[in-house]
Amino acid sequence: MEKNDILQEKEKRISRIFLEIAYDGTDYHGFAYQDSEKTIEGTVMEAISKLTGVNCEVIGASRTDTGVHAYGNVVVFDTTSTIPPEKFAAALNSKLPDDIRIMKSCEVPADFHPRKCKTEKTYEYHILNTRIPIPTKSRYTCHCSYTLDEKKMHQAAQYLVGKHDFSSFCAAGSQAVTHVREILSCDVFRDKDEITIRVVGGGFLYNMVRIIAGTLMDVGRGKTPPTDMKKIIEAMDRSVAGPTAPPQGLFLVGMKFKKDV
Amino acid sequence: MEKNDILQEKEKRISRIFLEIAYDGTDYHGFAYQDSEKTIEGTVMEAISKLTGVNCEVIGASRTDTGVHAYGNVVVFDTTSTIPPEKFAAALNSKLPDDIRIMKSCEVPADFHPRKCKTEKTYEYHILNTRIPIPTKSRYTCHCSYTLDEKKMHQAAQYLVGKHDFSSFCAAGSQAVTHVREILSCDVFRDKDEITIRVVGGGFLYNMVRIIAGTLMDVGRGKTPPTDMKKIIEAMDRSVAGPTAPPQGLFLVGMKFKKDV
Repeated sequence: MEKNDILQEKEKRISRIFLEIAYDGTDYHGFAYQDSEKTIEGTVMEAISKLTGVNCEVIGASRTDTGVHAYGNVVVFDTTSTIPPEKFAAALNSKLPDDIRIMKSCEVPADFHPRKCKTEKTYEYHILNTRIPIPTKSRYTCHCSYTLDEKKMHQAAQYLVGKHDFSSFCAAGSQAVTHVREILSCDVFRDKDEITIRVVGGGFLYNMVRIIAGTLMDVGRGKTPPTDMKKIIEAMDRSVAGPTAPPQGLFLVGMKFKKDV
Repeated sequence: MEKNDILQEKEKRISRIFLEIAYDGTDYHGFAYQDSEKTIEGTVMEAISKLTGVNCEVIGASRTDTGVHAYGNVVVFDTTSTIPPEKFAAALNSKLPDDIRIMKSCEVPADFHPRKCKTEKTYEYHILNTRIPIPTKSRYTCHCSYTLDEKKMHQAAQYLVGKHDFSSFCAAGSQAVTHVREILSCDVFRDKDEITIRVVGGGFLYNMVRIIAGTLMDVGRGKTPPTDMKKIIEAMDRSVAGPTAPPQGLFLVGMKFKKDV
């Protein structure tokens, strides 16, 4: 290798770039990359490759399901590009379809891994509680025609707060080593015809928020008494909880990392 | 004609049915029927024909543009069907695509015409005021990255209230005999990142609400002083008002008729 090449190689410093991503999940087969399907991760990887001219792998924070939306999912990737870290957001947005937007970009330490550090995630589940569904709400809410009592739902939700084995709220097929998770808060509130379930926790099992939403809707319509939530958690049995609510009502609102980014 | 046939004919009483319609206008070429394009009116006519087995014409209240949404547009149609009037909503919803819903159906007098009686219409224009557009908001808001001052917009909007010649707020191609219309109220308010312009009036010119929205956004970003609204109205000249805001932010919220329905 010539002296100049060595210098050039040295100049190619690798940066780890952090992206905060918002998306409409309707038209994607979920977040996680798949060879033959359109995914959020695959689309972001493609945009980075187009921009930097180099094929690029990314590490995603949360592998949301088909049809689930996000205001603030996170991916990181390594690059030798000289684009200033905070400029990646605008540069990538020019390569991305309108239903994915990078809200923020910055540099993080080389060892920052969004799934390996302590995080706090906020999810919201949105329910439209009207007799007839409203077309302009159907992409982003789950419709429920039974009148829901959001106060009972909130009361039931308080049993979920704390550290529990959430096996009753975990879909079959989960490969998690333990089903113990900690929920920091779970609040249910109404704004006119729309009910929001906002849940904050350190981590969630496969379909956990959607099963919580389905179970709380059973409470709201009077099928399950709020106090039954205790028994449902203690059963550690998926079959005793309510149904898995549909994906379009679910939003990954944002996440906080213990390491500052 | 046999006696029985005469009796049967007599029994075929014609009813005029009123439908309140909500729709997501994104995938339609506007409300008004067109031979070769998918329209709201055409799709509703088809559903009525499928349901009753008879080809059917409808009278629409408001011919919203391509991409404009509604919570409460209105159509009426005449039928000899024996389906109870209030059951038409559910029956038609089973024949309609998900992006059009009949929210209510009832019978009205045979001479009720939704464009010929005195009405009060409420429109809302929704603006997302963030630096970067949010994908799950883009179907139902107009994105504006300039920080908008909603108080100034509200102040400017007050000049519109009352009976005026709104030629400055009327798109070319309008076939209206007079451009005098009455605006009953025009309020601008913010909820976090979203600004709503809510305008109530007896009737609106072609693109009038979208030109009002475009002009108020010019006020909000500081390009036009609020007090200039008076001059803009008095000019009676489309070229002095602001741009026509895009359709996806516009919702026909509902309408009231002087005759009770």
